[in-house]
Amino acid sequence: MEFHEFSFRVRYGETDQMGVVYHGNYAQFLEMGRVEWLRSLGISYKGMEENGVILPVIHLQIDYKKSARYDDQITVRTQLKKLPLVKIEFDYVIYGPDREVLATANTVLAFLDKKTNRPIKCPDHILEKLS
Amino acid sequence: MEFHEFSFRVRYGETDQMGVVYHGNYAQFLEMGRVEWLRSLGISYKGMEENGVILPVIHLQIDYKKSARYDDQITVRTQLKKLPLVKIEFDYVIYGPDREVLATANTVLAFLDKKTNRPIKCPDHILEKLS
Amino acid sequence: MEFHEFSFRVRYGETDQMGVVYHGNYAQFLEMGRVEWLRSLGISYKGMEENGVILPVIHLQIDYKKSARYDDQITVRTQLKKLPLVKIEFDYVIYGPDREVLATANTVLAFLDKKTNRPIKCPDHILEKLS
Amino acid sequence: MEFHEFSFRVRYGETDQMGVVYHGNYAQFLEMGRVEWLRSLGISYKGMEENGVILPVIHLQIDYKKSARYDDQITVRTQLKKLPLVKIEFDYVIYGPDREVLATANTVLAFLDKKTNRPIKCPDHILEKLS
Repeated sequence: MEFHEFSFRVRYGETDQMGVVYHGNYAQFLEMGRVEWLRSLGISYKGMEENGVILPVIHLQIDYKKSARYDDQITVRTQLKKLPLVKIEFDYVIYGPDREVLATANTVLAFLDKKTNRPIKCPDHILEKLS
Repeated sequence: MEFHEFSFRVRYGETDQMGVVYHGNYAQFLEMGRVEWLRSLGISYKGMEENGVILPVIHLQIDYKKSARYDDQITVRTQLKKLPLVKIEFDYVIYGPDREVLATANTVLAFLDKKTNRPIKCPDHILEKLS
Repeated sequence: MEFHEFSFRVRYGETDQMGVVYHGNYAQFLEMGRVEWLRSLGISYKGMEENGVILPVIHLQIDYKKSARYDDQITVRTQLKKLPLVKIEFDYVIYGPDREVLATANTVLAFLDKKTNRPIKCPDHILEKLS
Repeated sequence: MEFHEFSFRVRYGETDQMGVVYHGNYAQFLEMGRVEWLRSLGISYKGMEENGVILPVIHLQIDYKKSARYDDQITVRTQLKKLPLVKIEFDYVIYGPDREVLATANTVLAFLDKKTNRPIKCPDHILEKLS
């Protein structure tokens, strides 16, 4: 499946007293990865919410291999796992500045109707862009 | 004016690589202080929002004297500065575990109608509880 | 195995524009859960770090069932999965105010020597408290 | 005095249930602004810390005018207020995607010796780059 890479610098406020990025902050990194993957396909997650579809995370898994450090330029590689139905699943690799693997991760998100909070199918205009 | 104190422990994820609490996290500490001050008066900020009144922060000022550290039990002392009209102003002192002053702070919040986003007066049932 | 429960209120700054707790913030909730579990056994995680042992998270998994909301009193139930060797594993359940399950989670942390950053065995004084 | 502009997108996890950026997150935005300002002068804040100088924030002031929203491209304009001695002071303007002013801010940071935690003068190699 298609993948997309997005890079950014680690902020000071993202470190903890171990001198590395606090592990909980990786959730935001993955979020940026998949949002930029969507954007690269011409899909705005913001627009999707405005059109009444929300995509909460229902499963998050991260395996930490090496530490990310302050000011490092890190890269999130986001890959769709399979064509989405009522859920959408991504695999991620987070790379450090020397392309070393810092972490691997997986998230599953559910398509929900914003008003009713009930599961819906992945909107057709998104499916079209994925095929 | 009345004041209220609220204590809690510093979380690991709130520290940064200087080994102390990241300065930006104090905004959440102040928020907890004023919410608990309201609760002590029988006012639920959550209920206020549900009734259509929001209270965004329009001014934030913090002076940092000493560092807060991981696992420290710290205390936020919240004091109303004057009776609110369309704005409400608080002074804060943040104390460390030995009652040393870690920071002093001030915030101003505006009463807004949630639907129109326009300024409104402090609701009467809150004013009554303050007098 | 032994378990421990710890309760606290959701902060405003922990919500996102879906109107619920941002999923990434649960990592801090789990961290509080295991730190308070340790404290209940007479073990200070802060003290452990000061004695040269650090415990980075190497695996994090969270399954989200229901949303946590602002001002909710939520409870983290932390349970040790087995006696630790070079790693320590916890299972968690996060409950909402009516004891409904909001999320289940699992973390694995590694005992490391703070100076060398190399794996070490779980310190004896901790093992003793667990048996 | 010299100024520098730095732009980035608002993350989902930075919003709160008001549907806008949580006010406390602006502290990180200002931090990025001044770090990129330093970088534009050839100064690495990371390198400065590695050389034993830390720069904790001792004063933070933010006036919020308009809300920043999810996915907005926002810009931090950072300006040095005067040549630093033992402290360094910055003024900031945060702009939204249409160059509207979202907030103005000011921070004062203190030069400290990392080992002794005592105030020191701004290092000469930094002063040279500022004149």
